[in-house]
Amino acid sequence: MNRKGILVVVSGFSGAGKGTLMKELLHRYDNYALSVSATTRNPREGEEHGREYFFLTDGEFEKLIEEDQLIEYARYVNHYYGTPKEYVLEQMEAGKDVILEIEIQGALKVKEKFPDTLLLFVTPPSAEELRRRLINRGTETMEVIEARLKRAGEEAESMDGYDYLLVNDKLEDCVEDMHRLIQAQHLKTSFQKDFVNQMKKELKQR
Amino acid sequence: MNRKGILVVVSGFSGAGKGTLMKELLHRYDNYALSVSATTRNPREGEEHGREYFFLTDGEFEKLIEEDQLIEYARYVNHYYGTPKEYVLEQMEAGKDVILEIEIQGALKVKEKFPDTLLLFVTPPSAEELRRRLINRGTETMEVIEARLKRAGEEAESMDGYDYLLVNDKLEDCVEDMHRLIQAQHLKTSFQKDFVNQMKKELKQR
Repeated sequence: MNRKGILVVVSGFSGAGKGTLMKELLHRYDNYALSVSATTRNPREGEEHGREYFFLTDGEFEKLIEEDQLIEYARYVNHYYGTPKEYVLEQMEAGKDVILEIEIQGALKVKEKFPDTLLLFVTPPSAEELRRRLINRGTETMEVIEARLKRAGEEAESMDGYDYLLVNDKLEDCVEDMHRLIQAQHLKTSFQKDFVNQMKKELKQR
Repeated sequence: MNRKGILVVVSGFSGAGKGTLMKELLHRYDNYALSVSATTRNPREGEEHGREYFFLTDGEFEKLIEEDQLIEYARYVNHYYGTPKEYVLEQMEAGKDVILEIEIQGALKVKEKFPDTLLLFVTPPSAEELRRRLINRGTETMEVIEARLKRAGEEAESMDGYDYLLVNDKLEDCVEDMHRLIQAQHLKTSFQKDFVNQMKKELKQR
C-alpha cells in the first residue's frame, strides 16, 4: 500500500517540554520529518539557514505569500514567520509524517486549509509543574517566568480546539504516546480512501 | 486521573475475522469488556443467558424499549435484538473500554446517541481474500458464500462512515493495531475535559 504521510501540528505551553519531546521522537523513529519555518528575522548565533529556519528577506517572504507557497504565516514584532508548503508536501508524499511546531493561531489556520491535520497539544501535568519547569531551566528572570505563565493561562483557553492532548509527565512515556497516536491515525478511514474504493470495486465486479 | 472507558463499535464483513480478533483482544488485555446483546429469539444449543445473549421475552424487551434502556435495537425476522444500556455504562464507569459488535445500521445509531463512540470497521485485505476465508471455513454452501459476498458489496458502501479501518491481514498485527488505536483515543481532548478545566482553573488562580 502506498502510504502517504500525515501532517501533525504540535503546540503547547512554553515549558511543556515540546522541544525535548520532538528531538527524542525524531531520534527514535525515522518516519518523521520536522518542518522548517521561514522567517525574516536575523539568524542568532549558532543558527543555520535550512536547519533552525530559512532566513529570508522581506522581499523573498512576500513573494512566497503572493505565490501561495506558505501553509500559514504571521507577522510578529516587525518580522514574518511562516511554514513553506513545498517541503511539507514533498515529505508527506515521500511517506514521512511531518511535524509543524507552531502557535495556536497558526495551528487553527493549518487545520482550516488541511482538515486532515492532526492537532496535538502538549502540557505538563499541572500548572505548578509548569512553573517548576520554567524556574528549573534557570535561564529566565522571575518576571519572564510570570509572563509565560500568564500567557499559558490565555493559551489554555484554546486547548479544547486540539484533537488530542499529550500530558508530558515522564518524557519516555510521552514520546511513545505521541508515536503511537500518530501511527494510529494512519488507520483513519479518510486516509485509506484508495483501499476503500478498491474494495468497493472488487466486491462489485464479482 | 479518573479514567473512564470508551465505547467502541466494531463492524465488518462476515468473514473478516471479527470474532477471532475480539476473542484475542480480550484474552490479551484486561481493560476491555464485551457488551452482551439482548434478544427475543430462542437460545441455540450451547448458548447461555448473559454470555452469548440476554434471552428475553417480547414483553421484557418491549419494557426495555419503553424505559429507554437500550442504546440501539432492531427487529429482524420477527425477533428483537438490542444493546442494553446499563451494563455498557457500568463498565465504562469502571474504566473498561466497552466493545459492541453490531451491524452498520446499529453502529450509526449508537454514534448519534453517543458522539464520542469510536467506530471501527474490520476488513480483509481484498475481496478475493474475503472469498477465500469464507470458503476455507468449510461450513457454508457456495450459495450462502455468494450471498455473503453480495451483502459485503452492499456493506462496503457504508465503510466511509466509520472512523477507522482495520485491515485484518495478519491476526497478530491486527489485534495490536486495534489495541493501540483504542488506547490512543483516551488522549482525545474531549475525553480529558476534567483535566483541561483543572488546568485552566489553576493557571487563572495564579
